Amino acid sequence: TENDGLIHGLSAVELQSLCVSCIEARATAYCPYSLFRVGASLLLKPSPTSFTSNPTIITGANVENASYPVGTCAERVAMGTAVIAGHRLGAFKAVGVATDLDDFCSPCGMCRQFLREFLELDTPVFMFNKGGMFKVRTMGELLPLSFGPDVLPPRE
Amino acid sequence: TENDGLIHGLSAVELQSLCVSCIEARATAYCPYSLFRVGASLLLKPSPTSFTSNPTIITGANVENASYPVGTCAERVAMGTAVIAGHRLGAFKAVGVATDLDDFCSPCGMCRQFLREFLELDTPVFMFNKGGMFKVRTMGELLPLSFGPDVLPPRE
Amino acid sequence: TENDGLIHGLSAVELQSLCVSCIEARATAYCPYSLFRVGASLLLKPSPTSFTSNPTIITGANVENASYPVGTCAERVAMGTAVIAGHRLGAFKAVGVATDLDDFCSPCGMCRQFLREFLELDTPVFMFNKGGMFKVRTMGELLPLSFGPDVLPPRE
Amino acid sequence: TENDGLIHGLSAVELQSLCVSCIEARATAYCPYSLFRVGASLLLKPSPTSFTSNPTIITGANVENASYPVGTCAERVAMGTAVIAGHRLGAFKAVGVATDLDDFCSPCGMCRQFLREFLELDTPVFMFNKGGMFKVRTMGELLPLSFGPDVLPPRE
Ligand SMILES: [Zn+2]
Ligand SMILES: [Zn+2]
Ligand SMILES: [Zn+2]
Ligand SMILES: [Zn+2]
Repeated sequence: TENDGLIHGLSAVELQSLCVSCIEARATAYCPYSLFRVGASLLLKPSPTSFTSNPTIITGANVENASYPVGTCAERVAMGTAVIAGHRLGAFKAVGVATDLDDFCSPCGMCRQFLREFLELDTPVFMFNKGGMFKVRTMGELLPLSFGPDVLPPRE
Repeated sequence: TENDGLIHGLSAVELQSLCVSCIEARATAYCPYSLFRVGASLLLKPSPTSFTSNPTIITGANVENASYPVGTCAERVAMGTAVIAGHRLGAFKAVGVATDLDDFCSPCGMCRQFLREFLELDTPVFMFNKGGMFKVRTMGELLPLSFGPDVLPPRE
Repeated sequence: TENDGLIHGLSAVELQSLCVSCIEARATAYCPYSLFRVGASLLLKPSPTSFTSNPTIITGANVENASYPVGTCAERVAMGTAVIAGHRLGAFKAVGVATDLDDFCSPCGMCRQFLREFLELDTPVFMFNKGGMFKVRTMGELLPLSFGPDVLPPRE
Repeated sequence: TENDGLIHGLSAVELQSLCVSCIEARATAYCPYSLFRVGASLLLKPSPTSFTSNPTIITGANVENASYPVGTCAERVAMGTAVIAGHRLGAFKAVGVATDLDDFCSPCGMCRQFLREFLELDTPVFMFNKGGMFKVRTMGELLPLSFGPDVLPPRE
């Protein structure tokens, strides 16, 4: 039915877990230059062989550098960790991002491009504000007409 | 004594662990564009409260993107994970990097800059070739006259 | 009137100039790694003190690096040149991008973010395919809910 | 003779021109986030067909972004412009970098890697401080054991 109890495909437990995880990850940021803490969380699709119902989540936070362009963002730290752990396109159910702003803060364009390589276009990205309220957009909405692996084919 | 059984400050067990870890991490790379796999490993200094003598190691591998400049390198994935886990300047004992080349391959300049933020200048970086042989240089040797947090002071 | 002879705000001469410029810029690319040439062009708003009706255009092309993440894209080379020449938010009338694909290729997320700092949200970005046909989207459409100077205020 | 009147291969006029150019370029920086202005200058080798003895110089300055990692440095803006203009490995005689610090400030690791693609290893990089005094190192000294096009061969 329309009212399936899911919020953009997530159960209340999953959404709560995604939210808490990126807020907690925010505290691990290294951002002495911007003083702008960001946390990110990636919710994995349940593994078919998993016996637990606990949502599996991978997190990240921003890591800045004295040479500003060399630093990296929360979303890319999280996704880098996930990819190294073996997760690829098809593995992700949702993304969460949390900042200290009252406003809903979206991933920067560079992170949208980084995420695009591994997310399906209908994967929801939840942007949590300081108070834990959220705004949500799909990957495809955040990076329309995007440029992915399909455009620039991998080498044979 | 001069012959303290250490190799650039590492015990044989630590060096072996550093080497095996970055070689294994290499297999987790996502590099469909370059087909150039790189693995990285970070050896933590033993915690004073640790009861185990097992070396603690954090790893990474390169994660590429259809938009080449958006991808990231093995060393930055590893260090991002380490920083998020709470490790900062003073926590690292050595770095390992492994590729599939016969030659010894060094971190790119961007990674040297990223590492510089968290490594002491005398921290050794071991570059392992395909056969597991290594060349070693300190952080300070790899990025002389470097530009770190001391030059561009963090905000108050 | 509705039919003012303009195409997304550009005269036919301006659009033609924007198109030709990014196609010509494409030939200046340094892309031995991807073999994927991209050219970009930025059309400046006419200066009030200008006596010429020739469109003023600044161009760029992609410049790759053996360490893929260190390279840069056509759009950022063009905008870097423009900013150094003194042009800032409010100076740009349109952006053009050209590749060798039959498809219309959009700027990567990183470039959208870079451009966002200096373009108004209603500035049109023309994506030209191999044959010189185009698709057009505004800056705001390409990077919705974007994160600009207004969110992270400059230092005082 | 040893005393050929050249400073690291440059005539006094060339060195003066390199210095003035990067100091002037510094004023064109867009750096509202770091407030750290950097200017860069690239001295081209004299063209064999050139009838002028005026040094030819290409400049750049840093262009920052609200998303810090998306910004770029002075050296890369300058070299991007040069490459688009057709200059490649073998074309450059020297690099100049100027900041507002009393100290001599070197290029960040990312810029060293970007420059490495187009500079010969013995090309001098002059670092000018606030007062116009300089320290000089070659490209090879700034990025020892570097990773260039020779290691990761371009596609056929
Ligand atoms: Zn980002
Ligand atoms: Zn690297
Ligand atoms: Zn781009
Ligand atoms: Zn730099």
